Amino acid sequence: MKSDLPALMEARGLDALIILGDAMHNPAMTYFTGVKHVTDGVLVVKRGEEPVLFYHNMERDEAAATGLQTRSITDYNYRDIYEQEGKNPLRATARLYQRMLIDAGLTAGKVAVYGQRDAGETFGLISGLQELLPNIEFVGEYKDSLLLQARATKDPQEIEQMRSVAQSTVEVVGQVADFLSRQKDVGGVLTGEDGQQVTVAKVKSLINRLLAERGMDNPHGTIFAPGAEGGVPHSQGSPDAPLRLGEPIVFDIYPVQAGGGYFADFTRTWCIGHATPEAQALYDDVRAVFDTVMGELKTGVHGTVYQDRVCELFEAQGHPTVRQNPLTRNGYVHSFAHGLGLDIHERPSTGRDTTAEDVLKPGMVITVEPGLYYPERGLGVRIEDAVYMHPDGHIEILAPYPYDLVIPLKS
Amino acid sequence: MKSDLPALMEARGLDALIILGDAMHNPAMTYFTGVKHVTDGVLVVKRGEEPVLFYHNMERDEAAATGLQTRSITDYNYRDIYEQEGKNPLRATARLYQRMLIDAGLTAGKVAVYGQRDAGETFGLISGLQELLPNIEFVGEYKDSLLLQARATKDPQEIEQMRSVAQSTVEVVGQVADFLSRQKDVGGVLTGEDGQQVTVAKVKSLINRLLAERGMDNPHGTIFAPGAEGGVPHSQGSPDAPLRLGEPIVFDIYPVQAGGGYFADFTRTWCIGHATPEAQALYDDVRAVFDTVMGELKTGVHGTVYQDRVCELFEAQGHPTVRQNPLTRNGYVHSFAHGLGLDIHERPSTGRDTTAEDVLKPGMVITVEPGLYYPERGLGVRIEDAVYMHPDGHIEILAPYPYDLVIPLKS
Repeated sequence: MKSDLPALMEARGLDALIILGDAMHNPAMTYFTGVKHVTDGVLVVKRGEEPVLFYHNMERDEAAATGLQTRSITDYNYRDIYEQEGKNPLRATARLYQRMLIDAGLTAGKVAVYGQRDAGETFGLISGLQELLPNIEFVGEYKDSLLLQARATKDPQEIEQMRSVAQSTVEVVGQVADFLSRQKDVGGVLTGEDGQQVTVAKVKSLINRLLAERGMDNPHGTIFAPGAEGGVPHSQGSPDAPLRLGEPIVFDIYPVQAGGGYFADFTRTWCIGHATPEAQALYDDVRAVFDTVMGELKTGVHGTVYQDRVCELFEAQGHPTVRQNPLTRNGYVHSFAHGLGLDIHERPSTGRDTTAEDVLKPGMVITVEPGLYYPERGLGVRIEDAVYMHPDGHIEILAPYPYDLVIPLKS
Repeated sequence: MKSDLPALMEARGLDALIILGDAMHNPAMTYFTGVKHVTDGVLVVKRGEEPVLFYHNMERDEAAATGLQTRSITDYNYRDIYEQEGKNPLRATARLYQRMLIDAGLTAGKVAVYGQRDAGETFGLISGLQELLPNIEFVGEYKDSLLLQARATKDPQEIEQMRSVAQSTVEVVGQVADFLSRQKDVGGVLTGEDGQQVTVAKVKSLINRLLAERGMDNPHGTIFAPGAEGGVPHSQGSPDAPLRLGEPIVFDIYPVQAGGGYFADFTRTWCIGHATPEAQALYDDVRAVFDTVMGELKTGVHGTVYQDRVCELFEAQGHPTVRQNPLTRNGYVHSFAHGLGLDIHERPSTGRDTTAEDVLKPGMVITVEPGLYYPERGLGVRIEDAVYMHPDGHIEILAPYPYDLVIPLKS
């Protein structure tokens, strides 16, 4: 968590972090600022010191609302620098950043870089800055970054926000279930009062409205994938697809607090009206593995131990798994869990890029999401909850919601 | 526009572009893919050849829906590479990307890099890739990039999408005006049927619901800034702020097609019930300048000519401007226009980073947004429309909407 930063920085020999970009939909920045309408800012975090936020004048009120120490970028008068640098925007911006870093007392040492920005701009800017500040060693970490390591465990204020967005999300899920249950069965296809088929697009429009009403953004969309589409884990569901009764629908919803704060991540698989025997059987297998792993989950164990365990359990049921064949498209094809926070996927990882650091620790929030996929047979099933691993070892489901496979029709 | 790319690449001596990241909320990528649920992809665009998209297996259906040539990243078996590279995720990923680029036939030449990603990851990855592929010169352009230059002019398909999102946006604006007009005046403060004051937060919640219903995301929020907050151009409006009758409210709305396609950008300033004489006078000044500049706008003229013109007109009215003092916080404090498209702010620029390229050209979509700000006097006024500069010279407002300052109450 954030209070670990000085020790983590010392362990990695980092003297400072610089974080670039907006304070919305930019996890590294909002980790320090909260969600604020600060664009194209620069945050300097020196080890053991208070962070300093450089902002543009038009956003001075928003910058002040972060509660951080602030300095105006506008006061550096970019236009003059731009003229001095022959109207070359890359050289001028590197010069501007050089001056800001010098004023922040950062002229030497090892400095890690973060923040969502255009890749080309970043590569050009940091390379240029490296030439202007040769006594600084700029470091670009990958996947296992210090900031991701700090963010892997959450403090109580973060957990409160994560519970809130998770709770709002399951409320939306409940409203969607209620909406579906009030439609009609016309020849095996879900149909509205108006005689129109209920499409994936219609359900997603409802989801977006309900999320917006509760103060959530949905930047990555929603998976609402019926039948064969649910057999491919990340297929979103074709907008015009009808919903056939009995067929499983994978409903994976992962909204974020408005402006880009903490994410929820939640999946249920539903059959409307009734479940086909094939869907019920696949669901029962996933549910059994989900319950077993949830019961066994504890801190101090490396995440991959559970990934192995999930593979073992699915294999015992007769399903192919990624453990047997990393390229399989049938059976259990992904990893069982991932960290959740300001990103949908953060540390710990139990997938292809897991490291020794990915031991489950008190303070972590992870999803648990076993699933089975048979695209050629036209179905997939996934169940996912996000859990908080309490310091006392207790495992809390952030927002409990029933696991029923079938959404019965009310009429 | 996109068809200009081969010529633009030749002019800059670029042999290829590589675009990194998701196909949602990532303008450089969605420019080629459309909005698709493809995460952590790599697009290789060689000069004069069809682009090739590398995707992960779980998203194969979404990748196929782009209509581009596709190749699976999963087939490279990252886990093996990761083991070979001593479980170092940066080295392993650089090696993976090296293999993909080689298979795409990219082993030499000048290659520009694009795409929204974490700054540190990009800097590390491209630096690592540069070592593995020494015959490639990786280029990070800044602000004046080739892709931004291409995107500055739009083709008819893009204009159709931009008209659509602009039209949906003014429909929402109209519904917000209607909502406000149906509230009551209680002691000079806008108040609902339920006796509660109508706050900024309440209006924004309505805006988000209406946008979601029409298939738009609102990742950057909305400016709905009453009184003194409207006197600072990018203040968002405090959630709990009440709306006082007569006081100007700056309402700047900039949603995007769901998943991150084209943006709208639109501003009106409203006084509810009536306008104070001070607000009316400031509004009349801005409106006069807006009308004059809209009447004078034509292609073939550099954007800064109009910025000068706006300054001249405001100065003649007695207002301070950025032309006299780049750091002024009173009067006219920003630039009059910016390009609009897959980003809210793109080329052309008429502000501090303008270049010789920023001549207004047929095919461009720009906002026109003069404004006046007096934070100490407690008010600001801005008017903004987005216009399309037709190839025949005609200037089209993408979504016309009335300019009335006062929203009369219905009861």
